[in-house]
Amino acid sequence: MTYCCGLRLKDGLVFISDTRTNAGVDHISVFKKLFSFGVEGERFIVIQTSGNLATTQAVIGHLKNHLALDQKPHLYSVNTMFEVAELIGHTLKRVIADVTTDPDEESNYYCNLLVGGQIKGSAMQLYHIYPQGNFICATSDTPYFQIGESKYGKPILDRALSYDMPLDEAFRCSLISFDSTLRSNVSVGMPLDSLVYRKDSLHIPLGKRIYSEDPYFEHISKQWSDALRRGLQNLPKPTDDYWL
Amino acid sequence: MTYCCGLRLKDGLVFISDTRTNAGVDHISVFKKLFSFGVEGERFIVIQTSGNLATTQAVIGHLKNHLALDQKPHLYSVNTMFEVAELIGHTLKRVIADVTTDPDEESNYYCNLLVGGQIKGSAMQLYHIYPQGNFICATSDTPYFQIGESKYGKPILDRALSYDMPLDEAFRCSLISFDSTLRSNVSVGMPLDSLVYRKDSLHIPLGKRIYSEDPYFEHISKQWSDALRRGLQNLPKPTDDYWL
Repeated sequence: MTYCCGLRLKDGLVFISDTRTNAGVDHISVFKKLFSFGVEGERFIVIQTSGNLATTQAVIGHLKNHLALDQKPHLYSVNTMFEVAELIGHTLKRVIADVTTDPDEESNYYCNLLVGGQIKGSAMQLYHIYPQGNFICATSDTPYFQIGESKYGKPILDRALSYDMPLDEAFRCSLISFDSTLRSNVSVGMPLDSLVYRKDSLHIPLGKRIYSEDPYFEHISKQWSDALRRGLQNLPKPTDDYWL
Repeated sequence: MTYCCGLRLKDGLVFISDTRTNAGVDHISVFKKLFSFGVEGERFIVIQTSGNLATTQAVIGHLKNHLALDQKPHLYSVNTMFEVAELIGHTLKRVIADVTTDPDEESNYYCNLLVGGQIKGSAMQLYHIYPQGNFICATSDTPYFQIGESKYGKPILDRALSYDMPLDEAFRCSLISFDSTLRSNVSVGMPLDSLVYRKDSLHIPLGKRIYSEDPYFEHISKQWSDALRRGLQNLPKPTDDYWL
């Protein structure tokens, strides 16, 4: 399985993806699921992938190939993030159609993508692109999207995340969402790939790969567990009528 | 959907179930999914249900009918909790076979059950009974089972619950697991039915129905949200290399 989470907040974008793929429990590998593109000072684009690995690799492969051969439209020729999402949606649709057009077979090749970024002169955007090639756009009401094994990590985002939150706090919130998922589901695995983009910087961040022994991640994971246990102990005892 | 959670701990058993059923988003009802049986001073049995409502009601109906007509074997005639689980598993298997024996159809009528309790002279047990009628048993390594929409509420159980935990703390942990699920998934809904059984008491608890305006539940839900937000704010900031 996979877990990817993308946030579009007032001050910027946050992306975290795991790297575990599995074809059965005895065929586990590490594959990158977070890809960044861009032209320094002009545009920055991130794609996060979940689902059929051959499909997602083909989508990324086609996008890169068009860039390499300057076959327009490509990621650096389109004018807006909306057109970026359309281009990627069409690419995804075509990749699946190349494998099968049988409606009963199609879903075996499905993938979901998160696409975020900013192009000079327009606002940051974050899209969730469906296997059918259509997509939805994050808003201040719903500032995050998840793909893959999303349920374990959703409660902390629903409870603590807000559009106006400082970027570093949102990043920690997102890391905790991953920590919760990693503990409860073995199909999501370290290392994680993370990227933080500051609004209007048009700078392409290097990002950081977080390994299982990463001291910062280990530290906040432990501190978070302690905070939860303490929080639980501090909750008032149930009243007597709960015990009759 | 449904969320039910059962704990078998050193000091007793804890059961919480939601009450929402849905056949499509426009057909939502309240149905009890936690049923208790017993003979004061002799045996105490709880059944929690998820899945096809006609199936679960038929299982409970047959079990009650056999008790009413004293048709043995029934819940008060068998000798051990293992035999209770076998009886319920067989009943479930028969109920599904009465509707269909077509393997392609069967899964439409599936349900999962948690069965816990104690019979005088033997240890408390907690079983997860599968649609096929077979079952697994909770242990001190794995002291809890969930059925239904279980993923949202699993991280807090995985992080904070332990076999040796005091019953009241485990009860709060379980309530928080429900609060997290209720916030992230509308197919799980209030009121909740809860029951706490103290080891070797052989007392049949009344249990408590927790409505959405329940002051204790509201209080711990708010206090928990505050604790999480504070915990998140107190986590150290990421080091600079996360931001390049």
